[in-house]
Amino acid sequence: MGRIESRLKELGIALPTETLVPRANAVHWRKTGNLVYVAGQGPFWGGKFVITGRLGKDLSVERGREAAKIAAINILGHLKDSCGGDLDRVQGCILLQGYVRCTDEFGDTPLVINGASDLFVDVFGDAGRHARYAVGSNALPREIPVEVGGIFEVAV
Amino acid sequence: MGRIESRLKELGIALPTETLVPRANAVHWRKTGNLVYVAGQGPFWGGKFVITGRLGKDLSVERGREAAKIAAINILGHLKDSCGGDLDRVQGCILLQGYVRCTDEFGDTPLVINGASDLFVDVFGDAGRHARYAVGSNALPREIPVEVGGIFEVAV
Amino acid sequence: MGRIESRLKELGIALPTETLVPRANAVHWRKTGNLVYVAGQGPFWGGKFVITGRLGKDLSVERGREAAKIAAINILGHLKDSCGGDLDRVQGCILLQGYVRCTDEFGDTPLVINGASDLFVDVFGDAGRHARYAVGSNALPREIPVEVGGIFEVAV
Repeated sequence: MGRIESRLKELGIALPTETLVPRANAVHWRKTGNLVYVAGQGPFWGGKFVITGRLGKDLSVERGREAAKIAAINILGHLKDSCGGDLDRVQGCILLQGYVRCTDEFGDTPLVINGASDLFVDVFGDAGRHARYAVGSNALPREIPVEVGGIFEVAV
Repeated sequence: MGRIESRLKELGIALPTETLVPRANAVHWRKTGNLVYVAGQGPFWGGKFVITGRLGKDLSVERGREAAKIAAINILGHLKDSCGGDLDRVQGCILLQGYVRCTDEFGDTPLVINGASDLFVDVFGDAGRHARYAVGSNALPREIPVEVGGIFEVAV
Repeated sequence: MGRIESRLKELGIALPTETLVPRANAVHWRKTGNLVYVAGQGPFWGGKFVITGRLGKDLSVERGREAAKIAAINILGHLKDSCGGDLDRVQGCILLQGYVRCTDEFGDTPLVINGASDLFVDVFGDAGRHARYAVGSNALPREIPVEVGGIFEVAV
């Protein structure tokens, strides 16, 4: 078992065994050079979106953080796929783009996206630190509360 | 005529002969290494935005898809410019970032952005598959319903 | 004094001496190869956000432009940090992603983000021209009116 897989086990994090099959012609990741671009992910687990709603109205910040963490776990799953199954090839997280479905007055989008940011540092250590956007949105696909994607550096 | 130009002809797609001149200091594309970043585009054709409005209220999903397709054709035009006129130098579409101007309850942003995603696969085949964001927005420039930009890999 | 520092002096632009310490595990910039990704920045100055509110309601376009300019000055500060203090190593601005907190009917997001775009061209000349997104948002962190981040090419 690789170093990162051991760390995931230690953290009690299971990667998804089934992922949302992209509709149409978008895919979950694309690689160019030593960078992997992972598409925006939501709180998808066990074949469906497990958290929906709007921050500032239906969901607490804590619940939004959980949604962002699940999105991040899906990112990890796709990242593993992009590395031929070997997460030890991941050399760093460069950028996360996070969108939070929320009311107009909601101002804690960073606290929500921390659910994803924290996961990458828990898993990859300092290499998991990243630049970030944490932006509000009035509408996300199928009413999910967060969409998060990222750019990762990997060993070629 | 190049391979991609032939394919465009086959698909009945004409590239724009006039494009929106960027106001101020932003430009339509920038290249770094073998990556071309194309700026966010809207449904601009014949010198003006031809579709405006809000998904979930003024426009059907089908109409939104058309707007996304026109935005994608503008991306193609700028991409061609970035390749010195030779679209055969395009090696792949890495990422599309799509924003959809919509009501708060609209959940079909991916179906709208498919209008762009499908075009790139129609034109480039599997090389056109890409990671993607399909995010809602309450407001886009000049009330256009979609803004789409992308990152492309090109032969240097 | 370097060429860019001299230019900043000429323009009367002081870089921030204190910056917003990122909460949790996100950082202000990450570098990969010769690209620096700077995280989304707001109008932060002297230890706090100096402009808050919503375009189309609380703030004029001109005031929004000022907010975008301050965000851009913060980007410059982080970019300098990423270059070991030497802004002459910056070779170009590739992409700006700008988000504007605004009412649903606001259509001048590009004019607001010009406050950032203009600064980079004022400072770097033609090398400062960039691809761009100028997207509306219903909500940004702590009710700031703009969030802008970017990708820059630097000499390794």
